[in-house]
Amino acid sequence: MSRNLPVNTDRIAWDIDALAGTTEPGHPWTRRAFSPLFLEGRAYIEARMRDAGLGTRIDAGGNLIGKRAGIRPGLGTIMVGSHSDTVPEGGRFDGIAGVVAALEVARALSDHNIQLDHDLEIVDFLAEEVSIFGVSCIGSRGMTGQLPQAWLSRVTDGRDLAKGILDVGGDPSILMSQRRPDIAGFLELHIEQGPVLEAESKDIGIVTAIAGITRIETTVEGRADHAGTTPMDRRADALVAASQLVLDIRNAAAERAKASGHFAATVGEFRIEPNAANVVPSKAVLLIDGRAENRRDMEEFCVWLDAHVIKLAATHGVSIKPPLRVSDNLPTPGDAGLLETLERACDTVGARHRRMASGAGHDTAWIAKVAPAAMIFVPCKEGRSHSADEWAENDDIALGAAVLFAAVCDMDKSLQTISQEKPNGTNTR
Amino acid sequence: MSRNLPVNTDRIAWDIDALAGTTEPGHPWTRRAFSPLFLEGRAYIEARMRDAGLGTRIDAGGNLIGKRAGIRPGLGTIMVGSHSDTVPEGGRFDGIAGVVAALEVARALSDHNIQLDHDLEIVDFLAEEVSIFGVSCIGSRGMTGQLPQAWLSRVTDGRDLAKGILDVGGDPSILMSQRRPDIAGFLELHIEQGPVLEAESKDIGIVTAIAGITRIETTVEGRADHAGTTPMDRRADALVAASQLVLDIRNAAAERAKASGHFAATVGEFRIEPNAANVVPSKAVLLIDGRAENRRDMEEFCVWLDAHVIKLAATHGVSIKPPLRVSDNLPTPGDAGLLETLERACDTVGARHRRMASGAGHDTAWIAKVAPAAMIFVPCKEGRSHSADEWAENDDIALGAAVLFAAVCDMDKSLQTISQEKPNGTNTR
Repeated sequence: MSRNLPVNTDRIAWDIDALAGTTEPGHPWTRRAFSPLFLEGRAYIEARMRDAGLGTRIDAGGNLIGKRAGIRPGLGTIMVGSHSDTVPEGGRFDGIAGVVAALEVARALSDHNIQLDHDLEIVDFLAEEVSIFGVSCIGSRGMTGQLPQAWLSRVTDGRDLAKGILDVGGDPSILMSQRRPDIAGFLELHIEQGPVLEAESKDIGIVTAIAGITRIETTVEGRADHAGTTPMDRRADALVAASQLVLDIRNAAAERAKASGHFAATVGEFRIEPNAANVVPSKAVLLIDGRAENRRDMEEFCVWLDAHVIKLAATHGVSIKPPLRVSDNLPTPGDAGLLETLERACDTVGARHRRMASGAGHDTAWIAKVAPAAMIFVPCKEGRSHSADEWAENDDIALGAAVLFAAVCDMDKSLQTISQEKPNGTNTR
Repeated sequence: MSRNLPVNTDRIAWDIDALAGTTEPGHPWTRRAFSPLFLEGRAYIEARMRDAGLGTRIDAGGNLIGKRAGIRPGLGTIMVGSHSDTVPEGGRFDGIAGVVAALEVARALSDHNIQLDHDLEIVDFLAEEVSIFGVSCIGSRGMTGQLPQAWLSRVTDGRDLAKGILDVGGDPSILMSQRRPDIAGFLELHIEQGPVLEAESKDIGIVTAIAGITRIETTVEGRADHAGTTPMDRRADALVAASQLVLDIRNAAAERAKASGHFAATVGEFRIEPNAANVVPSKAVLLIDGRAENRRDMEEFCVWLDAHVIKLAATHGVSIKPPLRVSDNLPTPGDAGLLETLERACDTVGARHRRMASGAGHDTAWIAKVAPAAMIFVPCKEGRSHSADEWAENDDIALGAAVLFAAVCDMDKSLQTISQEKPNGTNTR
């Protein structure tokens, strides 16, 4: 890269490679939360935080935090971070790139002898991925009092989540009271996990919103007839009806995605009964994963689906239960002010950027419940993620770190203007 | 029923009820081949054969045979029968109706003091259903030297099939040499296991052919992308492509079924990978069960399928391996002379009849390899079979038995004419 960046590209590459080396042998790259390898990775990150002059601690939610004190205590905290845990056999950059880029921001500030007015915290959130306890974003929920109390009793391998948090240095007993009203602004860098930036030759995606996720179960019931003896026109084939439904869902989602913000609907789980060669399928169960940047899109999709299955059932002589929303999360928009800050930062470092939604969930979504928050994407190869194939160019990550650096410097000024307009710096929303 | 039939309706009902009573408690109706209950059912049938004056034996294939000697030994044997074993939790009439109807033919001949020129054999074939040994039509294959030698070594619950056949009274050591060149003609009565006769208010289906069964495996391979982050128009969704294929197969089969003889194609087994809510499906595996009365239809269907998957793969950006025929059996036509005999018999007893194919396999298909053979269907309720709901009206079965009775009397004369036209009575084809 020919650009003269305010960050050190080699340091970023060194840290990412070092963390990639801390993996289960033969299963690249595996460093699951709560495992000894995870703690080994954290020890590396903590040491690098200390090398950068940061004061380190583990908070009640089990998050590793490196702090650089600001000149004007009481102004609040600018927080930058992501997560260092991985899914099994995947995630060389997912999360790690964001932690290392955040750390590099702190180092670059020191390189340039910049003293911020705000405190700066670099965070490695605990267990963003679905962990052995079957839930995700434990650290970012825990930091902000949003971790459901009941989750602490989830047991895996003879240990409950409360003990898991305790074992990494957190304090599950005071989790419910965590608030962090001091966070003035939060930024996260993450690989896109999609193909858009690469395809459009953009350097940075400025994330307008983290899509809401709605999971909808739909069950088609037909009749289990003999596949040899039942004429084609006398069947109630649940698979045939369900196949039409899969196509209709795909087409409805593609139409909606063209017309509006990010929208996707995927039938990811699908099974039939009795699943026997010589029996006409009597039942098909579909699980739809819907993602919407705009809530209205999801509401309209659900209204369409409810009406459509009634028509489809009549056409195919099957019955389809009213689709059931098994889970339903609202979209999380990025903070409007921070999105502008990030755009300015991109222009400052010369990064080609576009606004885009995140189809995946991130820690940012939980921090955004209590403070202004936004995130940026850097490109990844062919959109691959959660697999050993996951790849991001170090130069792209470094450019992203430079954007974070510029944004943090900008925020250190601009957030003071905002907080002066408000009675205090809490900025909860 | 007001008809004055040559058979005794009450005796038929009595026997079917008695066999229905010999079932695993709580699992109506279960009397699987090789089980103690199966032998108990057979003991009942053998006793009723003896009551009817038949000489009983178990042949090398483990088939229970009741013989009524003819006046002219050497003319050959008219054989009528079906099977008394059931699938698990299903089969109150499937097979049993044919065994009891055959037995009733013998009893009715005695009632009417009719002495046939031919020997008459009433057969309960061993293990027509897929048994604990995982294969079907053991008795009809075994009787005619068509049981694959390797099957004798199939082991279940510590017993191989050879021992299973031995335990029911057969002789596995001489199975390969079984031929039965004496069979002059064979008839089987069976419930339709489909909805056609009931829907068309017909009493009897005269089976033109037992459809060939072709099983075809097709694998669709796409790309496992993140369901949240991958735009709808950048996916290679194996489930979407496979859904289109399911619909196209259904429509192609329905078209073919309208234009020609019996034809059906069913995707009965279907699974996707990775089958995870938030991952675009990367793989779908379909198992197609194809049934064709006319071989040309199946050949043409396979040619269509081979070409179609190439087009479909291109349209959906997935790859589809050339469909693989995992098994392929030819159709078995009914003997033309016997079909005419059965039509005359229907007219004699006043049964409304139609010609139709059998989509399911039957013992008749194996006997047809060595002798003139044909079968008739009687209606069953809503086409239900292989389930506890299976039902056939006793009057319908009795009318079918009367058709068999008339056909056997006819065959006793007409087969002599045929055999005089040939150098011997073997009639192999």
